[in-house]
Amino acid sequence: MYYIGIDIGGMTIKGGLIDENGKIYAKKAVATLPERHYSEIIKDIASLTEDLVKEVGITVDDIVAVGMGIPGTINSKTGVITYANNINFEKVPIVKEYNKYIKKPTYIGNDANIAALGEARFGSGKGSKDVCFVTLGTGIGTGIIVDGVLLEGKLGAGAEGGHMTIKINGEPCSCGKRGCWEAYASATALIRQTKQAIDKNPDSLMVKFAQKEGKVSGKTAFQAAKMGDKAGKIVVDRYIKYVAEGVINLVNLFRPDYVLIGGGISNEGDYLMERIQRRVNRMSYGGHRNPRVQVKKAELLNDAGILGAVALCLK
Amino acid sequence: MYYIGIDIGGMTIKGGLIDENGKIYAKKAVATLPERHYSEIIKDIASLTEDLVKEVGITVDDIVAVGMGIPGTINSKTGVITYANNINFEKVPIVKEYNKYIKKPTYIGNDANIAALGEARFGSGKGSKDVCFVTLGTGIGTGIIVDGVLLEGKLGAGAEGGHMTIKINGEPCSCGKRGCWEAYASATALIRQTKQAIDKNPDSLMVKFAQKEGKVSGKTAFQAAKMGDKAGKIVVDRYIKYVAEGVINLVNLFRPDYVLIGGGISNEGDYLMERIQRRVNRMSYGGHRNPRVQVKKAELLNDAGILGAVALCLK
Repeated sequence: MYYIGIDIGGMTIKGGLIDENGKIYAKKAVATLPERHYSEIIKDIASLTEDLVKEVGITVDDIVAVGMGIPGTINSKTGVITYANNINFEKVPIVKEYNKYIKKPTYIGNDANIAALGEARFGSGKGSKDVCFVTLGTGIGTGIIVDGVLLEGKLGAGAEGGHMTIKINGEPCSCGKRGCWEAYASATALIRQTKQAIDKNPDSLMVKFAQKEGKVSGKTAFQAAKMGDKAGKIVVDRYIKYVAEGVINLVNLFRPDYVLIGGGISNEGDYLMERIQRRVNRMSYGGHRNPRVQVKKAELLNDAGILGAVALCLK
Repeated sequence: MYYIGIDIGGMTIKGGLIDENGKIYAKKAVATLPERHYSEIIKDIASLTEDLVKEVGITVDDIVAVGMGIPGTINSKTGVITYANNINFEKVPIVKEYNKYIKKPTYIGNDANIAALGEARFGSGKGSKDVCFVTLGTGIGTGIIVDGVLLEGKLGAGAEGGHMTIKINGEPCSCGKRGCWEAYASATALIRQTKQAIDKNPDSLMVKFAQKEGKVSGKTAFQAAKMGDKAGKIVVDRYIKYVAEGVINLVNLFRPDYVLIGGGISNEGDYLMERIQRRVNRMSYGGHRNPRVQVKKAELLNDAGILGAVALCLK
């Protein structure tokens, strides 16, 4: 059975023709060009759908359903995007508009939530019904699955775990609050922490790695730390502590089978996962008496969005 | 239809004979005496059940089911108490043992979770399927209901919201971590904060209220603040901020209809609720774009446990 998964981003819209086992038959991407009216963008998504179908040599009739991941707040029941600032959508009836061209059951979900669904169905969380998914990127996105069901909150406005306070009166966050997890443990925060450490430690290996890459990135401090650089190690240890604090909050609330870590920073792999795991084992509530929670790297990477959109159709 | 609700505490065990609308026909309590072997304590619970039934003039056969709230970690599927330190229970098959005497379907749940169920079914959250319940007592208990279902985590070990970090590297908590919400916003924490403020402000009205009550309590700072005492007001404002930070974390994750506040501190009523509400409105993620979450006082008070235990049977 064939499904279409659509992953709408600020820069590009990705589409995939995928079966119920997560096998991808065709992939395609188009530029979003978000300055246009929504009707034009949605028309492009319909064309993308037709292109995918043609590429595999089937027709739209062979498609069971379509799933879409949206970077913002959506109402999954009405099929309306409440607000998505990256693509300038506000109160956009995307399902209704898309169904003008493609008359198939169409489901929408928040992109971080959908990535969680994809990982739980096809990726690192395969086989589990209780998964917390954390994206360490520009911000921190969380997608939480409890007993197989995505936690969406009223009108899809929930599961904003990146905006848990982990340090009261702490760093200001773009959400207007202070001390959010995102303000300490996102890639953006790590870059800020690395820059501050470089200013204070001009002899650190971090300077060399940053020069080599042409900028300070989320990798800089990790590269230096792995080479034994003292200042780099301090940055990384503190950053991992920040990540772990939020992970432990999720563990204490949800006690899932897996916490899956995605986003750019997750490329640090075992080095990062093992250190978070150790803190979770030691600091989560109830310690050894409670079931073990495993911290793993998310594995779907760039296909997480389209696969998650299909997982949304299968639920 | 008649149900039995049992609320097991470290000091007393309360029981109620209750119908599906939450009407209480009989109530009774016995001392827990937790130093005894569990078989004796459970035998007492069975006798309590029989006494309740006799009091109303019915028989055990007229009872549909029995619900029990336990102060600890339980496995609702196997009917076993994993661990409950207040009553010295570890791996106690309470349902099997109780059914030796009372042969009726018997359900067990964590006490904070059950209080949440009771409030959602019969109390301040009546009519809603999305409720976060917070008890501000010796510690902080949380019970979370998502789409009508209690969030329990794997093997009943979840929803420990009191152990979310709200201040990294902050006050030590009994759980072994630092900076837990409970370490800042429980009644115990408020008493500690009040004592510190009294030491620094010997002329504060707090001293007078503490002398009158014979001790510093969770009420001391509130009483002084309401009389315009400056030092008392500082304690209360800061304490409310601590409470609100954790409430906002829950709102950002769950976006419920209601956050219900129970426990001793909730007796401060509107004075407390309105101030938490204002912070939630201002600081929760997405602000005005997201559905409003209402902060309310829990209303079942001392009957929350027995009513919640019955709500557990009705789910």
